[in-house]
Amino acid sequence: MTETQDPAAGTARPSRRALIGWGGAGLALGAAATGGAMALATTGDGRSAPDAVDFHGPHQAGIATAVQDRLHFAAFDVRTDDRAAFVRLLKEWTAAARRMTAGEEVGDGAHGGLPEAPPDDTGEALGLRASRLTLTIGFGPSLFAKFGLADRRPAALVDLPHFPGDNLDAARTGGDLCVQACADDPQVAVHAIRNLARIGFGTVAVRWSQLGFGKTSSTTPDAQTPRNLMGFKDGTRNIAGTETGRLGKFVWVGDGDGPAWMTGGSYLVARRIRMNIETWDRASLQEQEDVFGRDKGEGAPVGKAREHDAPFLKAMKPDAHVRLAHPDSNHGITILRRGYSFTDGTDGLGRLDAGLFFLAYQRDVREGFVPLQRSLSARDALNEYIQHVGSAVFAVPPGVRDADDWWGRTLFAKEA
Amino acid sequence: MTETQDPAAGTARPSRRALIGWGGAGLALGAAATGGAMALATTGDGRSAPDAVDFHGPHQAGIATAVQDRLHFAAFDVRTDDRAAFVRLLKEWTAAARRMTAGEEVGDGAHGGLPEAPPDDTGEALGLRASRLTLTIGFGPSLFAKFGLADRRPAALVDLPHFPGDNLDAARTGGDLCVQACADDPQVAVHAIRNLARIGFGTVAVRWSQLGFGKTSSTTPDAQTPRNLMGFKDGTRNIAGTETGRLGKFVWVGDGDGPAWMTGGSYLVARRIRMNIETWDRASLQEQEDVFGRDKGEGAPVGKAREHDAPFLKAMKPDAHVRLAHPDSNHGITILRRGYSFTDGTDGLGRLDAGLFFLAYQRDVREGFVPLQRSLSARDALNEYIQHVGSAVFAVPPGVRDADDWWGRTLFAKEA
Repeated sequence: MTETQDPAAGTARPSRRALIGWGGAGLALGAAATGGAMALATTGDGRSAPDAVDFHGPHQAGIATAVQDRLHFAAFDVRTDDRAAFVRLLKEWTAAARRMTAGEEVGDGAHGGLPEAPPDDTGEALGLRASRLTLTIGFGPSLFAKFGLADRRPAALVDLPHFPGDNLDAARTGGDLCVQACADDPQVAVHAIRNLARIGFGTVAVRWSQLGFGKTSSTTPDAQTPRNLMGFKDGTRNIAGTETGRLGKFVWVGDGDGPAWMTGGSYLVARRIRMNIETWDRASLQEQEDVFGRDKGEGAPVGKAREHDAPFLKAMKPDAHVRLAHPDSNHGITILRRGYSFTDGTDGLGRLDAGLFFLAYQRDVREGFVPLQRSLSARDALNEYIQHVGSAVFAVPPGVRDADDWWGRTLFAKEA
Repeated sequence: MTETQDPAAGTARPSRRALIGWGGAGLALGAAATGGAMALATTGDGRSAPDAVDFHGPHQAGIATAVQDRLHFAAFDVRTDDRAAFVRLLKEWTAAARRMTAGEEVGDGAHGGLPEAPPDDTGEALGLRASRLTLTIGFGPSLFAKFGLADRRPAALVDLPHFPGDNLDAARTGGDLCVQACADDPQVAVHAIRNLARIGFGTVAVRWSQLGFGKTSSTTPDAQTPRNLMGFKDGTRNIAGTETGRLGKFVWVGDGDGPAWMTGGSYLVARRIRMNIETWDRASLQEQEDVFGRDKGEGAPVGKAREHDAPFLKAMKPDAHVRLAHPDSNHGITILRRGYSFTDGTDGLGRLDAGLFFLAYQRDVREGFVPLQRSLSARDALNEYIQHVGSAVFAVPPGVRDADDWWGRTLFAKEA
């Protein structure tokens, strides 16, 4: 497809190939094999593609980052009891994540010169842009039962209780760790998770994974909020990535909030929320609008004209979703939502297996998702049309500070 | 997210809302409820969004159309023995497809004024662009066993034989009819299939469906061929949508090719090809390149420098994929490929459920996919790394000529 025929393509398309010269031509390969490793190690110094999100910082990217269009989320189980091997993997993963988020391939390019070895990179993202890829790691409660970490588990990382209506599939629940890959190109997100899984072979194994599309909440809420698969705008009043005040209050773990290793991190709750699409689609418009407490066209709260008008909660039905989820109904509880729609084909009964893969970041799960979901699961009118079928919670450590730092150092390093 | 913060968004974004005025504000709703129906009935007369693909023509769109970025494919089973009811559905589907491909909602906008009725459109594509949506219908062999159609089944629509290595899942195989939805935005493709399924409730039911991304073959082959999930370019020498000569010879059903109702149509073979990703990723670069008969970086055939150089087949291993699939090895057999990559999470063993959803159009299945796959399934080196797990074949009728025409008229209309 030529650039002019593809309205989605930019006119200038800086490619991974252009950056690293991994090509079939002998000259390019030779360059990569000899000088490539050194040049490539400078990742993060400004050579990054123009649509790359910086991997380094006090917080991990992928939380306050403006939401990308696509998601590949994977939960992993640890398959080793060798702490050193696991730490080695975290370091390898960090190096790979640093390169991939910069729009480069995994490895130093030497795969072009070593035909007898498997390629360092699986190759399907060659020629694609960085696509604002972010990779965000989290540690699940079960990880703290391993490697002698029991006393380092944060109190804020609670096991989620059973909520009314939960119908959790064990095959889509839990995990010792997770990686959230977000990018504007699905092939870039899939490539990242696949290469991390490949690198982790023997040490970790994918427990479950989820693809998502069409961001359903925006961390830059000035513009229109995207619609979920029920056709409604939801998450209109989400925390923006630029609101440092609300981020500090509701999202980032602060000094003294718990173990020092989590300072600058956050806690992630992931819920696979299946929508009963066929039932919803046969509900009347009035019922649909009553359930949400918004009108469907504009997304305005009941009795208001525009999407971003402040809602008058008492004008809504007592069990309206917007009313029950609003901070004013929940002692001010606020979470940063980063959910994606999913459609995973059809179930055995011909119904779409579709819904919302809900991702929420918060400073303390006990003061965020748990009380909020206690309220919603008991009373939300939406419950007639949805079902929570997967669940996980993770401690998301602080950011990787520089080229010498690595994912989880504050938890695993001897000196930490 | 604001336009300037989203590199994927165009600066001008003509929205469905702008086109039809389905909004929450009372004034807009009133307009839709009164004058909306008439104004909306003019679909196809030039009001279409600038990134809309024309629904009308001698051939269905979605075959020679430049390949869009995303796919939602659904196979349906018929749940009625009432021919008139099925024909009514085909007409309703045609009207809905005509509107959705023009970037409009299903229905006449009156849903805004009838709160006691379910909305005519599920709403999640409101505000999105037309996104080059195409909808392409096909009729499976099993449909011809219904409605007294047995003597109208084309001989070219053969049941596929069992090929060596086939491991077909009945739940992903067959179907009385299919709709292929392609668009540059996944939410637009998903919205289209969902609304067709909703309209068809009680008359048809989804048998299976498949999402795809990252077009793996291009019908505009001047530019770089996208990579499949093995990291290779495949389909480099595909038929371009502009090659009327090759399209007429290999893709479109001509006069005298079979029943007159198929003239201008084509035949579609769909195969869900799972890749053994983890095994592939541990194969050496040399093995990978030998299997394909190309180098991985550039995509050039063995011994050549550039992707589009003519391959020298004898330089490749006898079982190389490019060599075996090439027309010169197959008495000139040529098919139009339109496949998409898929990643459907993880199987029960922690392996990616990923691969290629292969879609190929041809003038006669007996002279296209069947002999080609007989050869490949017996000898292709790639077979060690892939498995065909789903399969279907469809007769794709000619295009809808104008606003009075409908999908399948040439087969179903009394006068046809």
